[in-house]
Amino acid sequence: MQKPTIIKVHEPSQSKNFLDECLKTPPLFTCTIASTETALIPGVSAAGASPELIPYTAAADVEAIIHGQALCLGKIPENPLGPPSPVIITMAALKRLNAPFIVVDAGNAITPKVPMLVAGRTPGLSLVEPVAVDNVAELFMQGIIIGQQLALNEHTLILGESVPGGTTTAMAVMEALGMAALGKISGSMPGNNQSLKQELVSRAMVEKNLSQGSCLDHPLEAVRLLGDPMQAVQAGIAMSASHKIKVILGGGTQMIAVAALIGALLNSKWSSPDFAQPALKRLLPAAVNARPENIAIATTAWVSEDKSADLRSLMQQLPVAMPLYAAGLDFSTSRHKNLSLYEEGYVKEGVGAGAMALTAMLYDNLDNSSFLPEIERVYEDIYLSEN
Amino acid sequence: MQKPTIIKVHEPSQSKNFLDECLKTPPLFTCTIASTETALIPGVSAAGASPELIPYTAAADVEAIIHGQALCLGKIPENPLGPPSPVIITMAALKRLNAPFIVVDAGNAITPKVPMLVAGRTPGLSLVEPVAVDNVAELFMQGIIIGQQLALNEHTLILGESVPGGTTTAMAVMEALGMAALGKISGSMPGNNQSLKQELVSRAMVEKNLSQGSCLDHPLEAVRLLGDPMQAVQAGIAMSASHKIKVILGGGTQMIAVAALIGALLNSKWSSPDFAQPALKRLLPAAVNARPENIAIATTAWVSEDKSADLRSLMQQLPVAMPLYAAGLDFSTSRHKNLSLYEEGYVKEGVGAGAMALTAMLYDNLDNSSFLPEIERVYEDIYLSEN
Repeated sequence: MQKPTIIKVHEPSQSKNFLDECLKTPPLFTCTIASTETALIPGVSAAGASPELIPYTAAADVEAIIHGQALCLGKIPENPLGPPSPVIITMAALKRLNAPFIVVDAGNAITPKVPMLVAGRTPGLSLVEPVAVDNVAELFMQGIIIGQQLALNEHTLILGESVPGGTTTAMAVMEALGMAALGKISGSMPGNNQSLKQELVSRAMVEKNLSQGSCLDHPLEAVRLLGDPMQAVQAGIAMSASHKIKVILGGGTQMIAVAALIGALLNSKWSSPDFAQPALKRLLPAAVNARPENIAIATTAWVSEDKSADLRSLMQQLPVAMPLYAAGLDFSTSRHKNLSLYEEGYVKEGVGAGAMALTAMLYDNLDNSSFLPEIERVYEDIYLSEN
Repeated sequence: MQKPTIIKVHEPSQSKNFLDECLKTPPLFTCTIASTETALIPGVSAAGASPELIPYTAAADVEAIIHGQALCLGKIPENPLGPPSPVIITMAALKRLNAPFIVVDAGNAITPKVPMLVAGRTPGLSLVEPVAVDNVAELFMQGIIIGQQLALNEHTLILGESVPGGTTTAMAVMEALGMAALGKISGSMPGNNQSLKQELVSRAMVEKNLSQGSCLDHPLEAVRLLGDPMQAVQAGIAMSASHKIKVILGGGTQMIAVAALIGALLNSKWSSPDFAQPALKRLLPAAVNARPENIAIATTAWVSEDKSADLRSLMQQLPVAMPLYAAGLDFSTSRHKNLSLYEEGYVKEGVGAGAMALTAMLYDNLDNSSFLPEIERVYEDIYLSEN
């Protein structure tokens, strides 16, 4: 059965015009990269051909977009079994849309050879460490500024990410913000290795004296203790930009966690000592007065329809109502085995692939059968141009 | 006698529609910051209340734009005699235009607390050192990428700078590129301390076996040996962006040096080993096919009419014809002594002040008498809000 081009996975009634509104301004794509040492725990991430290569994945992804190939890696990132990084989908969409693209660095271990809008310079630690993201308030502040600046362009803002290990930190943050997320997240391998991730998150929460919802009064604490640097930057960007423009959080599980953070912040009393810091205090109105009705999430159908996850349940639990859309990408007919492996649950999402595919399909009135050959061409260009 | 609002200092006949064309798209402002240790040579720079504060000037300038005050300095940069940084002019223009603003870091010693598009991470050394800008090829490449990305926004791009010591490195680069620049540059103090700067540049050139025009075959060598990191980034941005959009180099002497670099590169055979490096080689067509007719320079009347400089002569010597415009800013009637000191030759330009004032005046059909109170208000806000 053919997937629909765009799946309205979750669409609150007040969001019915969201996608039409997006079309009124051209798209601008950002990809926020960050490292979390959570990704280095064996079994957590398949975002790299081998465990040693995982730290290079985010840098390699954005180098591929800019340079056509990953300078730090020689080729683009791969899943251990061969399927390539979803960056090929993003590249195909960017080529078609001719959209501006900006890399945001929230704190990545490897510095790619591309210009980056630097929001933070410190990679995140593992969620089993006492503090995972020490500079969370600073990151949130930088996000607010970036959102203000980008919103002045009057584009529809699409915020992708490349953060290996990010679905595990997403699960942890959602739990700390009161959502039942265990067993419901997606990830980059078939089955999503739920039990390992679940055990990790549960153990980290117990060790830190946290239970479901513990961080609701001080939502940034969820990121500080259990999250990754991308989450704080992305929430800041989305909140301040939402004043003026439509914002699409590009990702599945990881962006539901960002949406949870946004919602929890909006429901909170903003009473954290972080917010008393003068520079952040001056900027805070841009976040406090965010317009969540201007924010949506977009991912791929591989994530939204993942039987080993439950994105619909996560969306229903969000503290603010937001729509989730999915691009009906289908690689089952691909002439490349490595791409058809996506249909078996490998890779699924990343580098804003779902949101960018959805944007290309939406703006250019494209379906999977016309878009797939363009993605295949990107894949072939990269692998044919190898030395 | 009242200054005209916009002075057409130098306008080749083919550029007659340049300013009208600019108006067709909204402005986008970038400020490229960089350090050169040339600024630390006593007498070279007045961009700081005291010599120890000079390294903070660029960071403080961009913090002032984003945060309303310089976080690293407590107040905005000042000339030793009191006149404030020209950033107040830029801030007034940005407020009026509500224009997007992006900081580009070409290699600044102090990291400001603002998101920056990082093109380089290494401050420049003094021009008396054997190599002033070691990573010049990398900086040029990053500039090309940034220009491509920003051009997709379809704005008129205004490229400001904050580089203390930058008029000295500008003079040196112009000489190495075959222009007679000695004694013709402007600067941040009355008289511009020409003899000191001249002696420095001449000595550095002799020591490096360079004479006027020595670097014409390999123009990036002028920056590598004598320049500052901003120059390479700015040239790359302007060249690649000029394919699609109008570009205004915001500054006086420093931007004439950037224009000289652009012209020399376009007249060169691109035969430097730098350009054989694969990543740069792939990007090079964007620079080789630059459209210099889409590039202009804009500064303040304090620079263009500076009797101790000769901007008209420099413009006539440029290897590619380009217009130079000046904003007819006049602080002689200001209610603040520190501002009226601008009329005596202090400060004059920086942070894209001339280009941004010109842009505000052009887009909003404004003259000096209406704009000056807005600049004064920015100045008062900063000094009244001091702790």
